Amino acid sequence: MQIAILLFENVTALDAVGPYEVLSRLPGAQTVFVGERPGPVRTDVGSLGLHVDAALAEVPAPDVVLVPGGFGQTAHMSDGAVHQWLRAADRTSTWTTSVCTGSLILAAAGLLTGRRATTHWLAADQLADWGALRTDERIVVDGKYVTAAGVSAGIDMGLTLAGRIAGEATAQAIQLGMEYDPHPPHTAGSPQTAPPPVVAMVRALEGAILRGE
Amino acid sequence: MQIAILLFENVTALDAVGPYEVLSRLPGAQTVFVGERPGPVRTDVGSLGLHVDAALAEVPAPDVVLVPGGFGQTAHMSDGAVHQWLRAADRTSTWTTSVCTGSLILAAAGLLTGRRATTHWLAADQLADWGALRTDERIVVDGKYVTAAGVSAGIDMGLTLAGRIAGEATAQAIQLGMEYDPHPPHTAGSPQTAPPPVVAMVRALEGAILRGE
Repeated sequence: MQIAILLFENVTALDAVGPYEVLSRLPGAQTVFVGERPGPVRTDVGSLGLHVDAALAEVPAPDVVLVPGGFGQTAHMSDGAVHQWLRAADRTSTWTTSVCTGSLILAAAGLLTGRRATTHWLAADQLADWGALRTDERIVVDGKYVTAAGVSAGIDMGLTLAGRIAGEATAQAIQLGMEYDPHPPHTAGSPQTAPPPVVAMVRALEGAILRGE
Repeated sequence: MQIAILLFENVTALDAVGPYEVLSRLPGAQTVFVGERPGPVRTDVGSLGLHVDAALAEVPAPDVVLVPGGFGQTAHMSDGAVHQWLRAADRTSTWTTSVCTGSLILAAAGLLTGRRATTHWLAADQLADWGALRTDERIVVDGKYVTAAGVSAGIDMGLTLAGRIAGEATAQAIQLGMEYDPHPPHTAGSPQTAPPPVVAMVRALEGAILRGE
């Protein structure tokens, strides 16, 4: 089972690494980080380099396609090599998936039209603009299309997918191996639970960037 | 505020990237991935390369030291360049921290002797062997020493530290930005909550590797 995780400049590291940490541990998984050019890309904060090991053309038909998001998503919203690869890979994939604003890239490539999907809470309006049926759920499974909300939701998405692919016991074993028994020390993980001034602060800081302004 | 995250061959990616995603977003943070040699290291599953941007000697006095774990931890349990760097950096650090079996490296370097600490649940006995006061808590703060349990606990550790460093509102804003409202789809995140056959399976598979056998 080949799992292709797309990388690009200014990707959010955890969008990719969260589900990688789960899916790469599935029995028989061969995980490969793909991108337009092999070599390092810098993640959105700028202080971490992740390695693209294979060019898109080298991985034409993965079983699982995973598109992370992050501020760099805005550079991949028009047709080009990434969209062409996504559409071709999607024709034979078993699962086509995204984390955070990665779903905007899938939607812009035409792969979420009329499908239920989710994204980072700040980008939900944009997802609808691109023709997907916007939800505010953390994980959405619509047929073979699995989308996750912002950043850390990719871990929950990976575990959901692991259960579907390999059964619940294997997913549980992976969860236990990574000791995923989350206890956030603050209560602020969603716009529904965070204090309103914190929501306003994040909306002001990140909203403009996510909208590509 | 300089934050140094140690990398080495066969590190567990999420151990480093989880807290990175939090701490690198603190106001004034300058995050740098350090290691014995600049260049890529492969993470434990083998299919992801992370970049070491600075040699240890280039980052002699970081404010925050963070040591991740993973199967590669076993190669850093005897005195050498990493231990010498850790001891020197710890003399002036504000926070000395670890995720997963990273605490075994800190303990082997002599930095946790007599201190309360935690680690991956499979490695707890070893932590005591190295002179730390073993706990089974997810996050342990003992003075400036902050240790986290396995892999995903690094996110909770990062947010705990973010609150101490920059105040609760900033930590909450970072949590909301990364939409950290975890909803694990399975119940298996700790040996107390996972089904006993799953605990036995993981213990058999990973225990021997973590013990360096």
